[in-house]
Amino acid sequence: MNESKTLQQAFNESVYPVGGHGKRSVNVLLEAFEGINGDTESDIYGNGPLIEEFQTEMASYLGKPSAVFFPSGTMAQQIALRIWSDRSGKTKVAYHPLCHLEIHEQNGLRELHRLEPVLLADKSRLITLQDVEAMPDGISCLLLELPQREIGGQLPDYGELEAIAAYCRSKGIKLHLDGARLFEVLPYYGKSAAEVCAFFDSVYVSFYKGIGGIAGAILAGDTDFTDESKIWKRRHGGDLIGLYPYIIPAAHYFRQRLPKMEQYYEDAIRLAAMYNGCTGAATRPAVPVSNMFHVHLDVSKETAESAIRGIIRETGVGLTHNINAVSEQSCSYEISLGDRYRLVPEDKLREAFRLLDDELRKAKE
Amino acid sequence: MNESKTLQQAFNESVYPVGGHGKRSVNVLLEAFEGINGDTESDIYGNGPLIEEFQTEMASYLGKPSAVFFPSGTMAQQIALRIWSDRSGKTKVAYHPLCHLEIHEQNGLRELHRLEPVLLADKSRLITLQDVEAMPDGISCLLLELPQREIGGQLPDYGELEAIAAYCRSKGIKLHLDGARLFEVLPYYGKSAAEVCAFFDSVYVSFYKGIGGIAGAILAGDTDFTDESKIWKRRHGGDLIGLYPYIIPAAHYFRQRLPKMEQYYEDAIRLAAMYNGCTGAATRPAVPVSNMFHVHLDVSKETAESAIRGIIRETGVGLTHNINAVSEQSCSYEISLGDRYRLVPEDKLREAFRLLDDELRKAKE
Repeated sequence: MNESKTLQQAFNESVYPVGGHGKRSVNVLLEAFEGINGDTESDIYGNGPLIEEFQTEMASYLGKPSAVFFPSGTMAQQIALRIWSDRSGKTKVAYHPLCHLEIHEQNGLRELHRLEPVLLADKSRLITLQDVEAMPDGISCLLLELPQREIGGQLPDYGELEAIAAYCRSKGIKLHLDGARLFEVLPYYGKSAAEVCAFFDSVYVSFYKGIGGIAGAILAGDTDFTDESKIWKRRHGGDLIGLYPYIIPAAHYFRQRLPKMEQYYEDAIRLAAMYNGCTGAATRPAVPVSNMFHVHLDVSKETAESAIRGIIRETGVGLTHNINAVSEQSCSYEISLGDRYRLVPEDKLREAFRLLDDELRKAKE
Repeated sequence: MNESKTLQQAFNESVYPVGGHGKRSVNVLLEAFEGINGDTESDIYGNGPLIEEFQTEMASYLGKPSAVFFPSGTMAQQIALRIWSDRSGKTKVAYHPLCHLEIHEQNGLRELHRLEPVLLADKSRLITLQDVEAMPDGISCLLLELPQREIGGQLPDYGELEAIAAYCRSKGIKLHLDGARLFEVLPYYGKSAAEVCAFFDSVYVSFYKGIGGIAGAILAGDTDFTDESKIWKRRHGGDLIGLYPYIIPAAHYFRQRLPKMEQYYEDAIRLAAMYNGCTGAATRPAVPVSNMFHVHLDVSKETAESAIRGIIRETGVGLTHNINAVSEQSCSYEISLGDRYRLVPEDKLREAFRLLDDELRKAKE
């Protein structure tokens, strides 16, 4: 725990942090509000041009009739599943065992909505068409996360996605997209957001992952669905008198960074190849399909932390801020690329990977 | 509906709006962030100095061991009632028929938490000690709103409040404070916030009523209670990665306006007296006990709107932006005073009331 803090601190002080867009500081807000007219009126409880225009813009981008801005994806997704469940009269919903709702929301879906999750696949792999076909009866909605973050940001083939969607439609099972990182996978699929979203009855996207806003989410779908979601937003306590402190940054960084998703994706491929060139290092996926991947090292968490701290000292390159132990002799961490990657000088990066390779070799001997 | 829009518009364009602090525009945010160092780190999922320091400050001000910042009071209050209900194993909670949870939250308490409200008193008056003593068995928590907004911002005597609290304590019933406008009643009670809050097991206060922030709330109580509330905050989708866009304005305007609550209260007394000097006009309460009161006029909503619009045209004074029909020949509206009141020139205000009196007289003839 203490060691990890020290790595976090070393990373925070590193000259060339490799991942992310930048520090989560007040500057993120100040930059987004630069040039905004102070007389611009707040949205008021979900109404007003400021929120309505952004919702319209996002609905159009996602190819859905309607969209609603939420303070969080946690709120938006529970609500989507509740609506589909209420409409079908079925209380079961299906998702991956490492779904955000299962591991990061303190059981909100069960405690607030009394829904019963059915876990598909296992923790090591994606949900397949076979898993979906084998689902028990009584499921109102299947949630798919694209990409599946907790296994390194993996994606089903586009054809498999199509087949899953067709199967669900034929069975009257609603399909919901956890698109927390949807923007990030579009370059790999080579599809528009609207093309991907067309497979889904409801779609959630986030504005503080690849987009780098402060917080906030969009939930999109048919108008009767989004209208109902506004009632639940009020019930959850998310229908704030003013959400503009999140909407203005969401809109600002969406415009700024959406065109850079291809760059982040290409950078991730390149960086993953450098990891895979090191002794006892491997990325998951081997070739990234978005701006993210996981790094697995065949050394203990402690050895890895010490190596990464040493690399920061020698080169200024901050490869990661946090490492998770997998076993006594293996560990992993998540890489998520943004604007900062291209600020790392080429020679410093090479030197960092030469040092990492050395350390991993030494540990093997 | 159309008429009301016109009044809203006329009010928006009035030179001397009487109520509130100012327009809900982006300037509210910009002013609060002026002078904030851009390198200040965001709070992260409820942690970090920015949120923790404000929570500590508010806990201390409210005289409670601990406090948690929430995006909304809707979220904070449902959670408080849920915790008290879970702990007692009782699913009934008691509150006023015009409680925020009953009329403004789309039944969230029932739909999300399966709690069963027991309504005390009736819509025309405050909850009394007698009402509390007559409560049925099986109630986990009583919620009191100070002041009771929907009946003009009325307050129980301090002695009655004390007696209600003593009764609840003796029966093992938790007492929760809906203090959306707590700051505003302290001058009338002549007590500190901590003195009033000492009667209550849990306390909610808001930062966008009298304080004039953007949004946000504090829920305070014992540490085991607030710790549990954080779990529910995550479940509700309110544990945002960064709440600082609300916290910084809350802290800013709290410091700026808390010392002015006495002024707003005195201004309300003075303005109410001017209303009560008009033919066919009366305020509720007759003498305000906070910065707010309701105005009741013995004319139709349409007549009143036409009079108020005329007054705006002739004097520039915007008495209200919204009028509710009570019957065919009576209507009412809410007044809530803030910084703008003292910007209205004395002679303009007198002229406005002379005109209002004229119009009300004419309508009577």
